[in-house]
Amino acid sequence: MQSPVINELIDAFKLLPTIGPKSAQRLAYFLLQNHQQDGHRLASAIESALEKVGYCQQCRNLSETEICGFCASKSRQTDQLCIVETPTDVVAIEQSGIYKGQYFVLMGHLSPIDGIGPDELGLPILRDRLAQGEIQELILATNPTVEGEATAHYIQQMAIEFNISVTRLAQGIPLGGELEYIDSGTLGQAFAGRKAV
Amino acid sequence: MQSPVINELIDAFKLLPTIGPKSAQRLAYFLLQNHQQDGHRLASAIESALEKVGYCQQCRNLSETEICGFCASKSRQTDQLCIVETPTDVVAIEQSGIYKGQYFVLMGHLSPIDGIGPDELGLPILRDRLAQGEIQELILATNPTVEGEATAHYIQQMAIEFNISVTRLAQGIPLGGELEYIDSGTLGQAFAGRKAV
Repeated sequence: MQSPVINELIDAFKLLPTIGPKSAQRLAYFLLQNHQQDGHRLASAIESALEKVGYCQQCRNLSETEICGFCASKSRQTDQLCIVETPTDVVAIEQSGIYKGQYFVLMGHLSPIDGIGPDELGLPILRDRLAQGEIQELILATNPTVEGEATAHYIQQMAIEFNISVTRLAQGIPLGGELEYIDSGTLGQAFAGRKAV
Repeated sequence: MQSPVINELIDAFKLLPTIGPKSAQRLAYFLLQNHQQDGHRLASAIESALEKVGYCQQCRNLSETEICGFCASKSRQTDQLCIVETPTDVVAIEQSGIYKGQYFVLMGHLSPIDGIGPDELGLPILRDRLAQGEIQELILATNPTVEGEATAHYIQQMAIEFNISVTRLAQGIPLGGELEYIDSGTLGQAFAGRKAV
């Protein structure tokens, strides 16, 4: 009995992650009742982003220009290269404000079962970049998962060829974490990586 | 440093209820990374719904036709009229499958402080409908809030003029509820409305 146009809108919202049937219905009716302007703005923001945003030729991050803001910036160090899996990892690292070097975004991790090999991750582009000789330190910031570690290992081997020093983000107890509730794997890493004070 | 087009997309998602900055970022990057088709579908579903969906001339529910499916249906009873506040209330009642009559959607409740009076709720249209004499029972299904009760009371007075019987949805303990955790107001209503078995 419900309008097919409204049903299609609800179905379209359901395609998004974390949005279930009830949330999708709520969002659809929200836009239709007194928030038409927000709806137009969202629709045009989506179309505009999909049309304009592509990949940076140098670091593979999402970008609306051929070379992204990070790669083009003159104020960032050019001798450090941080390898991350996704553009949101770049956002997270930028929010910490701790890093001022360059990025390289893999857009995934090695996963032979899904047909994702070195080529899909743009590793030939990374190899060319390392061969240029400007990079002095490669910081591996892939996720500490099995696939992330495998990817990091592969890239590490590549960097060794070019005699570039490679570092990996420290693993241990997160800030504000309580020992009691830390999983044993993380605790093991924290012990193995303990530092003299 | 982040692309302004991506920022605008994140800001647009943040306009939606229950979507905070972190969720908005997740949704935006989800669409930009490998889900472009879903993005186009969502954008066009929004535009299409905003363009086509208006209000039913008879019951004020959201509808893409002048008279909505409920009002036009020949298989529904025409002597019962259920008054609800929003289109999502209609969806909820339909999902229960218990009601087969007509609806009238107020699109809000009486709220003088927000400038919402009888005219904004379409009560003149409701009055005309009651005057036609086809409606035998008016079921008040406004929310059991102060504003919902006030609105129900106002409509009840209107129905009395036309000698139409008025009912209100039962208030009491919800199915599967536990007495221990029911608020005292609801418990009071359940006692006051107790029935002989």
